[in-house]
Amino acid sequence: MTNLLILSRDAARYEALIARHPAAGSLQISSPNDCPPADILANAEIVLGEPALVAPCLAQMPALKWVQSTFAGIEPFCRDGLRRDYQLTGIKGIFGPLMSEYVFGNILARERRIGQLAKQQEAKIWQPNRYRGLAGLTMGICGLGSIGQQIAATAKALGMRTLGWKRTPGPAANTDETFSGDQLAAMAARCDFLVSVLPDTPATQGLFNRALFEGMKGEALFINVGRGSAVVEEDLVQALEKRVIGGAVLDVFRQEPLPQDSPLWDCPGLVITPHCAAESFPEDIARIFLGNLERWKRGQALEYLVDFERGY
Amino acid sequence: MTNLLILSRDAARYEALIARHPAAGSLQISSPNDCPPADILANAEIVLGEPALVAPCLAQMPALKWVQSTFAGIEPFCRDGLRRDYQLTGIKGIFGPLMSEYVFGNILARERRIGQLAKQQEAKIWQPNRYRGLAGLTMGICGLGSIGQQIAATAKALGMRTLGWKRTPGPAANTDETFSGDQLAAMAARCDFLVSVLPDTPATQGLFNRALFEGMKGEALFINVGRGSAVVEEDLVQALEKRVIGGAVLDVFRQEPLPQDSPLWDCPGLVITPHCAAESFPEDIARIFLGNLERWKRGQALEYLVDFERGY
Repeated sequence: MTNLLILSRDAARYEALIARHPAAGSLQISSPNDCPPADILANAEIVLGEPALVAPCLAQMPALKWVQSTFAGIEPFCRDGLRRDYQLTGIKGIFGPLMSEYVFGNILARERRIGQLAKQQEAKIWQPNRYRGLAGLTMGICGLGSIGQQIAATAKALGMRTLGWKRTPGPAANTDETFSGDQLAAMAARCDFLVSVLPDTPATQGLFNRALFEGMKGEALFINVGRGSAVVEEDLVQALEKRVIGGAVLDVFRQEPLPQDSPLWDCPGLVITPHCAAESFPEDIARIFLGNLERWKRGQALEYLVDFERGY
Repeated sequence: MTNLLILSRDAARYEALIARHPAAGSLQISSPNDCPPADILANAEIVLGEPALVAPCLAQMPALKWVQSTFAGIEPFCRDGLRRDYQLTGIKGIFGPLMSEYVFGNILARERRIGQLAKQQEAKIWQPNRYRGLAGLTMGICGLGSIGQQIAATAKALGMRTLGWKRTPGPAANTDETFSGDQLAAMAARCDFLVSVLPDTPATQGLFNRALFEGMKGEALFINVGRGSAVVEEDLVQALEKRVIGGAVLDVFRQEPLPQDSPLWDCPGLVITPHCAAESFPEDIARIFLGNLERWKRGQALEYLVDFERGY
């Protein structure tokens, strides 16, 4: 038997999804509600769980061989001083569609003034508003992994021009032009919509700052569904207050939940959502885990292995 | 010289867009602000205009050879007793993307509870809400012309299953299964989202009625961006009040503007917008007119010719 430990607020749901699958026949599953007992940790060989719950326990798991993260953001595992002598696998492919829905849902709600139309309906006012179509407008996407490419595909389906900024130079699917390195500001200057799906790595800290915002179009909309650390929040507040850019939609923040006294909450032109753009639905995560479990049992390479150095 | 009469609330804008184009060199353009003088009508050979403004003048235009409609809905020209001895051309290809943005903007605003999240932001409440992804859900599209096919293409880009109902049996692009004739209710019963882009013709009157709604899924959303005459509005109000279906989004109505005393305004689960899903932007319409004008001058067949019998 192999000992599987599940550390998640949805642990019971995960256990139910996994236990009934044929590949789980050889597993001894523990899914404690609270802090796991020392003997459970000591024997855990495979862990399925949330990064913030699993990372603090790493030192107490001498038998650990593989961690399957239930979230896309795995930075808690990459902090200095933490062991890296196990396989860490992430989540890919399932967040792209959800992120894409969030991005275009927010863009279209804004462009079509859906909130304004709802108020007009309440007052029984028949009054068409001016708007523009998305076709021909330019979207820049920072980060062209599976999520960024899905957003680009949706943008192309809506007739938009797509630009992309990524770590390594070269073309990308559904992206009309790609940029890398110090070309971020040059790309941002051309965008009607600038979307970041960048992870939290040393290379992405504070990329979206005053200088970048000041080079953007006055009507541009900035959307962050990556990680809050990529944005200098004070600079964004200033850019919005001074109408340097047209608006912003943030789903991620330097500190989450966003503190009650943050100036972001009532900054003009800023839409705030509580890190909900792409939720981890246990059904999807369990499917990825079970696929990797079958590979594990056959001695094959696991999918979505994380490179601790790169941070994704 | 050929006499062009422009009858539109945007007449000045149209004249500016057309007059500077080389193809307009041989045109004598009139764009009266109000009711056109009798001599202008008597000499008009080509008319560019809004159906509701042009149709009442048809009898006063003995020289008329061609009408280019500025709107997609051309039913005012098809009424019994009106002359049909001229070429009528419609608008195709430009409304599909706008309609698609309206449909998915409203679907995503609803699924992601964008209005609810805005209220939470006002109250500085950090509270993710449950939602579902669109991938794998089923959209049924009634009417598979250029608009319906564009909506289907966007639905496929978002990973949805697409069903389509159309006049003549046979496959359609981006549509997983097609239906026709008396199969509308059978298709509707399978849909999470049922979208009508049907025109106002004798064959589409009252298609969306009590029997149809009662066969649909309890959570289904009905969206009408076609024509109001396809919906029995009393039946839809009843279906929403009794929660027979989950909700509806209407951009078109039997009477527009929607009368102040209509029960639709505050019907539960119903979103009302003022016939704004796809506006005629003069730049786009002028481009279509100028393309047809060049064909006209060369003696070629015009694009988007309307069949008066079919009504589109």
